[in-house]
Amino acid sequence: MDITTLHVDAGGGYDILISPGLLDEAGKRIKAALPRAKRLFVVTDSNVSPLYGARLVASLETLSFEVHTHVLPAGETSKSAENLVALWEWMTAHGVTRTDAVVALGGGVVGDLAGFAASTVLRGVGLVQVPTTLLSQVDSSVGGKTAIDLPSGKNLAGTFYQPDLVLMDPDTLRTLPDDVFMAGMAEVVKYGCIWDAGFFDFLAARPSRASLMEDITHILRICCDIKRQVVNADERDIGLRQILNFGHTLGHAYELAGNYTKWSHGQAVAAGMVTASRLGVELGVTEPDVPEKIESVLASLGLPVHIDCDFAHIEKALGVDKKNAGDSVTLILLKRVGTVTPLKLPRAEVLDRLAGLPGR
Amino acid sequence: MDITTLHVDAGGGYDILISPGLLDEAGKRIKAALPRAKRLFVVTDSNVSPLYGARLVASLETLSFEVHTHVLPAGETSKSAENLVALWEWMTAHGVTRTDAVVALGGGVVGDLAGFAASTVLRGVGLVQVPTTLLSQVDSSVGGKTAIDLPSGKNLAGTFYQPDLVLMDPDTLRTLPDDVFMAGMAEVVKYGCIWDAGFFDFLAARPSRASLMEDITHILRICCDIKRQVVNADERDIGLRQILNFGHTLGHAYELAGNYTKWSHGQAVAAGMVTASRLGVELGVTEPDVPEKIESVLASLGLPVHIDCDFAHIEKALGVDKKNAGDSVTLILLKRVGTVTPLKLPRAEVLDRLAGLPGR
Repeated sequence: MDITTLHVDAGGGYDILISPGLLDEAGKRIKAALPRAKRLFVVTDSNVSPLYGARLVASLETLSFEVHTHVLPAGETSKSAENLVALWEWMTAHGVTRTDAVVALGGGVVGDLAGFAASTVLRGVGLVQVPTTLLSQVDSSVGGKTAIDLPSGKNLAGTFYQPDLVLMDPDTLRTLPDDVFMAGMAEVVKYGCIWDAGFFDFLAARPSRASLMEDITHILRICCDIKRQVVNADERDIGLRQILNFGHTLGHAYELAGNYTKWSHGQAVAAGMVTASRLGVELGVTEPDVPEKIESVLASLGLPVHIDCDFAHIEKALGVDKKNAGDSVTLILLKRVGTVTPLKLPRAEVLDRLAGLPGR
Repeated sequence: MDITTLHVDAGGGYDILISPGLLDEAGKRIKAALPRAKRLFVVTDSNVSPLYGARLVASLETLSFEVHTHVLPAGETSKSAENLVALWEWMTAHGVTRTDAVVALGGGVVGDLAGFAASTVLRGVGLVQVPTTLLSQVDSSVGGKTAIDLPSGKNLAGTFYQPDLVLMDPDTLRTLPDDVFMAGMAEVVKYGCIWDAGFFDFLAARPSRASLMEDITHILRICCDIKRQVVNADERDIGLRQILNFGHTLGHAYELAGNYTKWSHGQAVAAGMVTASRLGVELGVTEPDVPEKIESVLASLGLPVHIDCDFAHIEKALGVDKKNAGDSVTLILLKRVGTVTPLKLPRAEVLDRLAGLPGR
């Protein structure tokens, strides 16, 4: 099997392996990365389990691991404190030791929750991420952030905890619905926007799912490589990592406007990148042809380039309602495709500019 | 104010400050250690709050911090997942930011729970430990372990997370009941046993609470200095730290025998150190006069030197009921007072020796 390998230095250092069919080699790869593990605690969800659960478990059992499986209901509401506690109790009841490991099979919800549980049970056990969605493959499986949601908001409790191994089988993307695949593409396009103009052009030349899947290993490698470089430089999220938020502040406004149901995260980020690049042009930071370039690529992928939104949602996403949030905001803007620049501005000025933006 | 300062290198590095009356300077010291903190989240319990809560909060408010206080019921049952989640929700509802801090005022239960909450809310905020019991001052406030209990056992979920500052006011020890103070002394004597024969003799010459309190700052400094050296060498608890468990395996058997209510942790550890030194003599590792020396110091402090115990509890404490626990156990033994040596032996042999030990 021809396996693409990326090494991430963060934490104790770990490998990201990318290859079609890798799911069936999971046992072998985990054995090599975690030779002392006896028990593996597979966490997955009700969508992914019937598709890939049995294949993964079979591969693990071939290597004589003692495998336990926990299937969560699919969806964001599973990222709860209640499920975190349930995972702790499940693992300790099955005699987890510090050299055993959690295997997270699924998208971002599964990875975030299972990663949090792995980082805290016995103060930290092994962790293997097996992301099965495009979004989790290019985003949440790299970087070492774990989280659950609380009543006050999303991702409010969690840890920084690097996995011991990340296994990406691009074949798992074939079962994603079109809109979920394309929502993941919004983050893929983002990497081109902030870091790599050549990659942006590469994506622009592949305006269909079929053409993207022909080069999917290359696409995953490029995205993980960019995120790896950013995370290596800023493991604890205190500086450079903020460039990964290009399109996300306005995206957050659109998610709010759609009550988190009408627009997926990826769709909201797509429209957010277009608005952010228009705002950059207004501010004289972004070259004038950038918004159209980004719009064109996103539209060819069937992603929204404009989302209607009350101004109140934009105010909220910019932190207007937060006590002590300070008077300025840091915008993540492009100079041109492939070159990003954070810009700190008075919040009032940003709101004024956005209010005046046609089709914001 | 004459303040004794110890610097710990673990994590980002932090200071332990020791001084009578330090409680009234908490605000000033926290301001210096965490200049960006605006909100302080004080976690304490129903025993400590009426004694020291108002003084601490007054000191913090003098420095214009926004102070929120959460009072837990006193006792081990507060170290629960339910309370952890409650602390997360309380802090996020009050707008905690990543530069704010948790202040843990109390004993080990408060420190472990509040430390876990601080390490995970927003993936980690500031943490100030203000231990008010002898046990927490010499043990749990140094070392960066946080935890809660689960139905399967104690300390089964938690993190490694170093505080930003530890404030110890020895005057808070004056309100401890005698048995609680002396239980803390068991761990103090342990430091002499494993690390410092001169300190052991120093303690032997002070067989009363009054005489110990005359030199309490020195005693706290020595204990924290020993623990600091051990933790600096083994932050993630994979080797050297196990010497801190001298007396703890058999202590665990005695805690089980008393159903965690008849004997406190400190009392059980006292008797555990005596039995461990007897076992060491049996094995030819420990010099023959050691058990009597340790017994004499502990007895002079009113600590138990022998606890009746079913052999089943000893088997349980040695992991006999655990699947895959392996066939050997690592005993922490003394060569002589002040010199420790870990010794790996077949579990069956250890059990045989213990079964044959008079008054085990």
